[in-house]
Amino acid sequence: MALVEMAPVTLRKAELHASVGDPVLDTMNFLNEITHRYPQAVSFAPGRPYDGFFDVEEIFRHIRRYLDHLVEGGATPGEIRDALFQYGPTAGQIRELVADSLRKDENIDVRPEAVVVTVGCQEAMFLALRALFAGPQDALLVSSPCYVGITGAARLLGIEPTAVAEGQGGFRCADLEVALAAEKARGRRPRAFYVVPDHSNPSGSTMPLDERHALLDLAARADFLILEDSPYRLVSPGRQLPTLKSLDTDRRVVHLGSYSKTLFPGARVGFAVADQLVVDEDGRQGLLADELTKIKSMVTVNTSPLSQAAVAGMLLAADGRTSELNTETSAYYGEAMRAILKRLDECFPEPGRSALGVRWNEPAGGFFLTVDVPFPADNAALVRSAEEHGVIWTPMSYFYPQGGGEHSLRLSVSYLTQADIAEGTARLARFIASEAARTR
Amino acid sequence: MALVEMAPVTLRKAELHASVGDPVLDTMNFLNEITHRYPQAVSFAPGRPYDGFFDVEEIFRHIRRYLDHLVEGGATPGEIRDALFQYGPTAGQIRELVADSLRKDENIDVRPEAVVVTVGCQEAMFLALRALFAGPQDALLVSSPCYVGITGAARLLGIEPTAVAEGQGGFRCADLEVALAAEKARGRRPRAFYVVPDHSNPSGSTMPLDERHALLDLAARADFLILEDSPYRLVSPGRQLPTLKSLDTDRRVVHLGSYSKTLFPGARVGFAVADQLVVDEDGRQGLLADELTKIKSMVTVNTSPLSQAAVAGMLLAADGRTSELNTETSAYYGEAMRAILKRLDECFPEPGRSALGVRWNEPAGGFFLTVDVPFPADNAALVRSAEEHGVIWTPMSYFYPQGGGEHSLRLSVSYLTQADIAEGTARLARFIASEAARTR
Repeated sequence: MALVEMAPVTLRKAELHASVGDPVLDTMNFLNEITHRYPQAVSFAPGRPYDGFFDVEEIFRHIRRYLDHLVEGGATPGEIRDALFQYGPTAGQIRELVADSLRKDENIDVRPEAVVVTVGCQEAMFLALRALFAGPQDALLVSSPCYVGITGAARLLGIEPTAVAEGQGGFRCADLEVALAAEKARGRRPRAFYVVPDHSNPSGSTMPLDERHALLDLAARADFLILEDSPYRLVSPGRQLPTLKSLDTDRRVVHLGSYSKTLFPGARVGFAVADQLVVDEDGRQGLLADELTKIKSMVTVNTSPLSQAAVAGMLLAADGRTSELNTETSAYYGEAMRAILKRLDECFPEPGRSALGVRWNEPAGGFFLTVDVPFPADNAALVRSAEEHGVIWTPMSYFYPQGGGEHSLRLSVSYLTQADIAEGTARLARFIASEAARTR
Repeated sequence: MALVEMAPVTLRKAELHASVGDPVLDTMNFLNEITHRYPQAVSFAPGRPYDGFFDVEEIFRHIRRYLDHLVEGGATPGEIRDALFQYGPTAGQIRELVADSLRKDENIDVRPEAVVVTVGCQEAMFLALRALFAGPQDALLVSSPCYVGITGAARLLGIEPTAVAEGQGGFRCADLEVALAAEKARGRRPRAFYVVPDHSNPSGSTMPLDERHALLDLAARADFLILEDSPYRLVSPGRQLPTLKSLDTDRRVVHLGSYSKTLFPGARVGFAVADQLVVDEDGRQGLLADELTKIKSMVTVNTSPLSQAAVAGMLLAADGRTSELNTETSAYYGEAMRAILKRLDECFPEPGRSALGVRWNEPAGGFFLTVDVPFPADNAALVRSAEEHGVIWTPMSYFYPQGGGEHSLRLSVSYLTQADIAEGTARLARFIASEAARTR
């Protein structure tokens, strides 16, 4: 039946929820558009993992391995069938394997009941924010520049994050203390502080060990929670500093976990570790994980059991040690980072570099580094960079919830080959020279 | 390293977001607890699909079929690998297949760009509510009794739904018109009306064709959107009435889709069809689907490509006709519904039935029916039913956002064998007799 279309319903964007006008979302869309429009450009933009080590046939073996594991555990054929096909428990059906892996890989020792398996780390962030933020008096502080996932999730819930600026050397606890005092002076209650302590997205900075201890002390003194998100640790070369959660003696830290870098993004499996006690008016005790689970039942019901099966198969293959699965990838990313740092050094020799006003940080791991440039690294500059020089990057200003980063850009090296990095850095150098000449 | 645990952080539940105290979530937890505590009881509670037709090996074939389809479409090995392993497009990578299936199965003719693939229908509801409800002036009306997924999602977002009571024969447009007037009198703007038009959960009622047309007319006159959720149509026997979306000539209807009943729940794949135009202040036009996609990027980033691959493989196997995949299941559910109606007739012969005050509706499809009883069908009665009579059901009062249903219970027949249905109905009859005697 062909319907005659009447004048279609037209909604005014201004009457939709404010989050759809979120500048972060619009800028990210702009970045995608640029990437699409200039397919020949070398792109330092995407934070995706390198995919050369993925093998399609492995997916089938991973799922099969998990099913075999269920058989070994005594599951009946009907139970195995249901473990793939039916709705699963809202909190996840592979919580034991996740908890086991956290113990072996990260020295994080929690009961499976404190784990909620989520649709990627993004849902874990969303659930934690929804549970913890009851109203406008609750303040969310974020290390800034900041991952857009947390600020975006916050805005869906009407939470306006407060930025705590990183210094040149990264996060400093003293700056957080000042921000906490300012929030309290405004009559607000600092509820949680979000941070990516290792090889952060976007800046690439890592929190030193003494700052980690200082942060945990401060959180105890000022009574707020720490939301720790650390997806790049186990895909970085060398020994990593301990997670905040592994140093946490009083359950101050909600650890937000991702398997997108250590296993694969297409699983969309992450998790929250939320072992905080929750006590109701009648004195009944539960865990924060239980509350996140209730919220999850109204967002996604449960995480795909099929995806969980693939992830479980990979965890089983490595006996929980995702770090061991990633020795090759960590080396790959490490070499990519060394390569871009070497190329930048070659392209910008001293003393010209300082005279030009170009500098960058030197992350020991992760996917990202930051380059400061002597001109506004804005969308207009990005278009010129893509069109005239064939190189794409991300304006750092996208990552500052309350302004900043106007003269910096983020480079991601995770997705590129060494040849792309060499060519891309050369193009970037030409772009920077041209732009500097233009604005001089 | 063994950490010495200090006094753990203890959060007061009253200081968490109000949604974690949502009575619906608490009652659902209670139901799960009862089911767990009385494993020998016949349970008419779960709305899960019957799983006897699932076959584990099929999962591997479905995924393989989708990969073959990509090969046939000219994808390179790298593209195929990325289609499983990488992040995918936020709006979904199987939108063409979904749109094709909607055209063949449901006479819903929309471009793939109007489809957003979601983590189950639950995420589709969540996204639609977040986009459409900008503030307290926007009213959500729901047909009541109502599926808890929509009211739960609403509460996460601080939206308090307004119940429009179903009459004995189901939804009546005239009742909605009264409710709309009341909202407007309170200074609120009716933004959307949520309804399950076919074999609804929980009541089992179906909206007649003339009411469907009347509802579309009313929506156009009063300028609100219709949120249509209809997961049971294609697993019901016989010819179904047209979806509201297929009758929609001016894009009034946002169609919320689920594959949990037609394909399998473990995929956690659903979708929203949102072809409404959205225009911004500068006159730029997009679709509501674009706005849902932006929001989705901050909730789950994208739906698991692995899950989408399994769903796509099933759609390809049936050339888009999920109805044809479900001829056997529809017959199974139809027989289950006929069986319980027959058993109820036998257990409650007239004139005793009327004297006792027991009655039920007779749905032609779906998973659910409603039984009115002459006593409060509350949690205390449920515990006695499970403990003393070995039968579990769902209090209908769970499904009334603003009170009601205190003397009704919901029976689900989807998950039970004919033998379970016979035994369960006999036990239910004994429970009802005992309860009626108790309260007389």
